[in-house]
Amino acid sequence: MRAAIKRGNRILCDEIAELTPAAGQVLVRTCACGICGSDLHALQFPQAVTRIYELSGVDHPLHPDADVVFGHEFAAEILDFGPATERKLRPGSLVTSVPRLIDQGQAHVVGYSNVFPGGYAERMLLSEQLLLPVPNGLSAVEAALTEPFSVGEHAVAASRLDGAGAALVIGCGPVGLAVIAALKARGFGPVIAADFAPGRRALAEQLGADRVVDPADESPHRSWREFGVPQTRAERMRLLAAGTHPPNPVVFECVGVPGVLQSIVEAAPATSQIIVVGVCMQTDRFEPAIAIAKELDLRFVLGYSGEEFARTLSNIAEGRINAGLIVTRVVGLSEVAGAFAALATPGDQAKIVIDPSRS
Amino acid sequence: MRAAIKRGNRILCDEIAELTPAAGQVLVRTCACGICGSDLHALQFPQAVTRIYELSGVDHPLHPDADVVFGHEFAAEILDFGPATERKLRPGSLVTSVPRLIDQGQAHVVGYSNVFPGGYAERMLLSEQLLLPVPNGLSAVEAALTEPFSVGEHAVAASRLDGAGAALVIGCGPVGLAVIAALKARGFGPVIAADFAPGRRALAEQLGADRVVDPADESPHRSWREFGVPQTRAERMRLLAAGTHPPNPVVFECVGVPGVLQSIVEAAPATSQIIVVGVCMQTDRFEPAIAIAKELDLRFVLGYSGEEFARTLSNIAEGRINAGLIVTRVVGLSEVAGAFAALATPGDQAKIVIDPSRS
Repeated sequence: MRAAIKRGNRILCDEIAELTPAAGQVLVRTCACGICGSDLHALQFPQAVTRIYELSGVDHPLHPDADVVFGHEFAAEILDFGPATERKLRPGSLVTSVPRLIDQGQAHVVGYSNVFPGGYAERMLLSEQLLLPVPNGLSAVEAALTEPFSVGEHAVAASRLDGAGAALVIGCGPVGLAVIAALKARGFGPVIAADFAPGRRALAEQLGADRVVDPADESPHRSWREFGVPQTRAERMRLLAAGTHPPNPVVFECVGVPGVLQSIVEAAPATSQIIVVGVCMQTDRFEPAIAIAKELDLRFVLGYSGEEFARTLSNIAEGRINAGLIVTRVVGLSEVAGAFAALATPGDQAKIVIDPSRS
Repeated sequence: MRAAIKRGNRILCDEIAELTPAAGQVLVRTCACGICGSDLHALQFPQAVTRIYELSGVDHPLHPDADVVFGHEFAAEILDFGPATERKLRPGSLVTSVPRLIDQGQAHVVGYSNVFPGGYAERMLLSEQLLLPVPNGLSAVEAALTEPFSVGEHAVAASRLDGAGAALVIGCGPVGLAVIAALKARGFGPVIAADFAPGRRALAEQLGADRVVDPADESPHRSWREFGVPQTRAERMRLLAAGTHPPNPVVFECVGVPGVLQSIVEAAPATSQIIVVGVCMQTDRFEPAIAIAKELDLRFVLGYSGEEFARTLSNIAEGRINAGLIVTRVVGLSEVAGAFAALATPGDQAKIVIDPSRS
């Protein structure tokens, strides 16, 4: 079968071996698979990704130099069942799943494995127990977006936001857009969203951001005051003493390049919680003394739980999140390398989805 | 009157003007005043301290080049009352206070003011409303330790520790020792404490640390496992799935020099909360991707509330914290410059207290 393969520092299209489902496994046809920023990282910084992978405690090693077929944001159609499967879903059913495959008692990450291909291939193996049927006639493309939107759900769940908070989302790529959607699905706000690209700002607005800011025009932190968030601890204490409860500020860092965190530490209001969702692969610099003076809380998050994934699928299926909005392009396997190049250039691209049935 | 004055980058002993209490103020005789690491910072990095000071939102500016009489950890005896005071405490009463002085409606920080002297002077002005009488016949030296121990109380209150957590305290200077004392006053544990200096390790043990480690011998993070804390998220999830609730790990960073945070990020167990109490005045470097892979939470804290200060005084007065243990030297005003030099050298010194009545 055909797959887009990471080989060295290139993505190329080639044939790979057909798959046979083992115990508990299901053979599926990949219908749609998103390209994630992490896939770009894994091409550019394979050693760093392998290290993160090890630190996050996955069973099976990921060798930075061996071939990988990426793809952990997918929807697929059941083709065949392996032994020891319950077969409650019928062949032809559209499914999605957290990207884990259990093989001989070991967990592999689908899309970051040297052994099993991810969704950049025509077919994949998945674990039957982890399959979620796609409800409400959702398209494969929309269902494939469950994974990236789950990242937003997890980030919001990890924050101390409630209905009385105020959020600033820095960066409106797929991660930032997923955070905005998760905030709005819970009815949280006001949500300020900042991105240099007009197309991404438009998407932020369509997903419900209350205010969108071009950081080239003005600091997104200027909006705090209009939403009643004081800049200093002293101001906050004066308001509290006067019986006013100002909103708790939460900043979502959804860019993940060096320097962004320091810019947030400098500009964020005192007592802000900063949820770091954007993965910065290089060493970064910041001034701890400023974070101390403001009593900031930097919460680093990764992934999502199975519950958060299922809740996100339901949010999409029931129209609380208009996931399909963020798809800016659909490509075939032979166009993946070009799509990587497009995503590596800052601009209006948000989510590019692969349809392996396309030539 | 005599005072030890910060002038330029030196501490020197000189005469300063006598003080007259204004409305709401009390003139006191300084009986004991601790030397804080922040005072050393303010001598070495005056611009940075002024910036932190501004960021923390205090009313009155602190000029980095003008004279300052440090001293914000004090106990004092009431000498005289200004106008518009209630005079509920008698002259001669031993008192302590959070280091704030209200003058003409503006808050000044006692010990970081270009206008009013702190506790490195024979006499000070304090705000009557903020005075706490020293109970239970506590000595002036013990009462002066309320302030540094409040920093530990605040750090522990800001953590997500409870009776089922496990704590690692990196650095057993006064800040680390205050954290250990606050943990033990709440009955929290196990507490692992790490410091290169044997004298400081001995103090940590006397204040109740369950395990003390010399980082030159072994990583203090090796102790997590013996207290049942798993290293990776995957291990934690397996334990939770099996119905075992491993302790939540909390690391207190009480050193505050560049590189310490990165070493903690590298070695701490997944899902650790890191409470940053040590104030690092320089730009620091770390790898956000590791923090993300482990889902770390970096909580930066500063100071304490009035309630935390009062609770700490009561903890000391009622014997829950043996504060006096940490005093390694008592000096007169003329010996302050030498004490600064002793504290700047890593070693066994913990808290040096000034007694301005000494020659």
